[in-house]
Amino acid sequence: MSKLRAAMDAAPRPLPYESVPTDGARDRVLAADIVSPVAMPEFRRSTVDGYAVKAASTPGVLRVTGEVRMGEAAPLVIKAGEAALVHTGGNVPDGADAVVMLEQTQPLDPAPAKIQTVARLAAGENVIQAGEDVAAGEAVARAGTRLREQEIAGLLSLGMTRVNVLRRPRVALIASGDELVAPDRPTGPGQVRNTNAPMLAALVRRHGGAPIVFDPLPDQRAAFSAAAERAMTEADMVIFIAGSSVGARDFVPDTVAAMGAPGVIAHGIAFRPGKPTLFALADGKPVLGLPGNPISALVTAILFAMPVLGWVQGVRNPVQPGQRRATLAAEVKSPRDLEQWLPVRLAGDTATVINTKSNLIFGLVRADGMICLPIGVERLEAGSTVDVLLL
Amino acid sequence: MSKLRAAMDAAPRPLPYESVPTDGARDRVLAADIVSPVAMPEFRRSTVDGYAVKAASTPGVLRVTGEVRMGEAAPLVIKAGEAALVHTGGNVPDGADAVVMLEQTQPLDPAPAKIQTVARLAAGENVIQAGEDVAAGEAVARAGTRLREQEIAGLLSLGMTRVNVLRRPRVALIASGDELVAPDRPTGPGQVRNTNAPMLAALVRRHGGAPIVFDPLPDQRAAFSAAAERAMTEADMVIFIAGSSVGARDFVPDTVAAMGAPGVIAHGIAFRPGKPTLFALADGKPVLGLPGNPISALVTAILFAMPVLGWVQGVRNPVQPGQRRATLAAEVKSPRDLEQWLPVRLAGDTATVINTKSNLIFGLVRADGMICLPIGVERLEAGSTVDVLLL
Repeated sequence: MSKLRAAMDAAPRPLPYESVPTDGARDRVLAADIVSPVAMPEFRRSTVDGYAVKAASTPGVLRVTGEVRMGEAAPLVIKAGEAALVHTGGNVPDGADAVVMLEQTQPLDPAPAKIQTVARLAAGENVIQAGEDVAAGEAVARAGTRLREQEIAGLLSLGMTRVNVLRRPRVALIASGDELVAPDRPTGPGQVRNTNAPMLAALVRRHGGAPIVFDPLPDQRAAFSAAAERAMTEADMVIFIAGSSVGARDFVPDTVAAMGAPGVIAHGIAFRPGKPTLFALADGKPVLGLPGNPISALVTAILFAMPVLGWVQGVRNPVQPGQRRATLAAEVKSPRDLEQWLPVRLAGDTATVINTKSNLIFGLVRADGMICLPIGVERLEAGSTVDVLLL
Repeated sequence: MSKLRAAMDAAPRPLPYESVPTDGARDRVLAADIVSPVAMPEFRRSTVDGYAVKAASTPGVLRVTGEVRMGEAAPLVIKAGEAALVHTGGNVPDGADAVVMLEQTQPLDPAPAKIQTVARLAAGENVIQAGEDVAAGEAVARAGTRLREQEIAGLLSLGMTRVNVLRRPRVALIASGDELVAPDRPTGPGQVRNTNAPMLAALVRRHGGAPIVFDPLPDQRAAFSAAAERAMTEADMVIFIAGSSVGARDFVPDTVAAMGAPGVIAHGIAFRPGKPTLFALADGKPVLGLPGNPISALVTAILFAMPVLGWVQGVRNPVQPGQRRATLAAEVKSPRDLEQWLPVRLAGDTATVINTKSNLIFGLVRADGMICLPIGVERLEAGSTVDVLLL
């Protein structure tokens, strides 16, 4: 996969951008840097309920000259020996440089009100300075950032209710096989339903892409060429599912070779499940060939295709599967010359490998995650600590 | 939080269910167990390109009697000394009990075709038995399962193109504060934009809920009562944001106490950021009071409110934040009597704590994740291994 990494050192083809409402932009990718037009917070704020004072007036007896109401400008200026009631998040009035917490004060005369405090405040105590979070002109989020809850809040705090994000990359999903029928059709003898393409469509959506699910192709060269042509027109990335091995029905390698330069970069990886995986670039668009066995298709899509989809978006913080540390219930073995991924079930902190074949999707339905035995690792003993990639 | 856990031992109020297309049901929660009506695979399948044979006929010279084409019934029966060409995933014909890989055979006479193999096959070799993945009548996915890619594929493989899932739980998000203005409005002196509710709406959506974003409430008792009444009618779960502390503007505790039995279960937790967090059950509906500071609001929503939302859905495999192991760049300290969460930035495997205040949302924009210093842990040394909860 080092050739693949080298290919992905290049910049992807630029995606167009579109303007969307910020509050619905979770997981969309910023098209450009966001620069704050103002300093944030816009005014000095109290972090506590208390009295705004001059720190130099503490400890001592202070005269209460008023209240700063929330959402209003401070109606007064604090002078030595004075205090004004302020609420958490409220505007700290001019003249004050600290806020003494309510619970550190003792009321004295009711009118004209006085308070006493034994606290000795430092200048700035319990005050957030204007601009402490963000300076005017500061880049607060970089192009390529996949927006999270906090970016949504940050943009909205600046009044940016719309945001320019990259158009979702379109991903053509092209399954093939004479045996495939649509999932809503009954199966005849020797037929199976086309489940890989809708399965990967869900994965693509979750990683920010817009899937284009092709009708499954028959095992005919011409059908592959036609699908490839359509995919290069409509899609930013192409995934063939099945047909990338070396059998009589495997039209993917030849088809991909004709799609554009530089063509096939890697074909066949020391990886299980998913040995026949193929990666190509055609006129700057990534084209992948994934295995047709469902478990192989999903595992290679997660581990290889989704990082490529992240690259297409130039995303700095791609969606990543969760990880959990666990203890292996029983010894597992793996060929020395392969990177092998095995499905596991978790019970508490114990991971048990599920014995299944890559053709059997319900093996992954039973799985909570997968563990990796890298090249060179032939066995993991019972009791080993493993990192489980959550599915 | 042990009282909270005890309250959540009870079953949540049942949510109604709805039928949705399976291929768009990622992250929806199954309303009922799914039982397979058939055995899967429905027919014996070859795992390789090769020849279907009787294992007892190997090694030896075999007469090729035909080909099993993909998607068709096997047109022949294999007798001793016979072989039929089959493709990966194809139907293994009656009479055969193994498949010899193409690369382990040598063609002999062209017509009538003969092949030779020196491989000695075991019965069942390179064959997936009918029903090997799933038996007819077997429960393949349990009620409460949040559907993943593999469940989508599994259901579609059974021809289930629609699936009954729980209606998304409606979550009322009620921010309050006289200082709040809508994000699309200019801010006057002392005003800030209402960002917490849309921020948590994105989080709620990502965890399977349907947010109902209320207009922010003024700091008036009557406004809280009216909002509580509306929320109890429209929502399955209620989140107040701000107002759950003990100041003059903190109307949440009293409001919640009047919403229904058993009422407040926990108020005030040994947790930073988010000490004033409140948890209640009102007529079986969870009601939370989260802090109004943006970082506190997001952290407590992730760590407390989202597990509660998972409980409302009875979900067996809730959405979980990713985790990564990292090395701490510099010593951090924490009060002994608090569980403290600190935002960190990751550079490779090194985590650096971001110095920020819980009022400053851009502190979390700069963060990749958070680390936890549990109660009793007063310091973590530079170089410590930490588990970073990815944001």
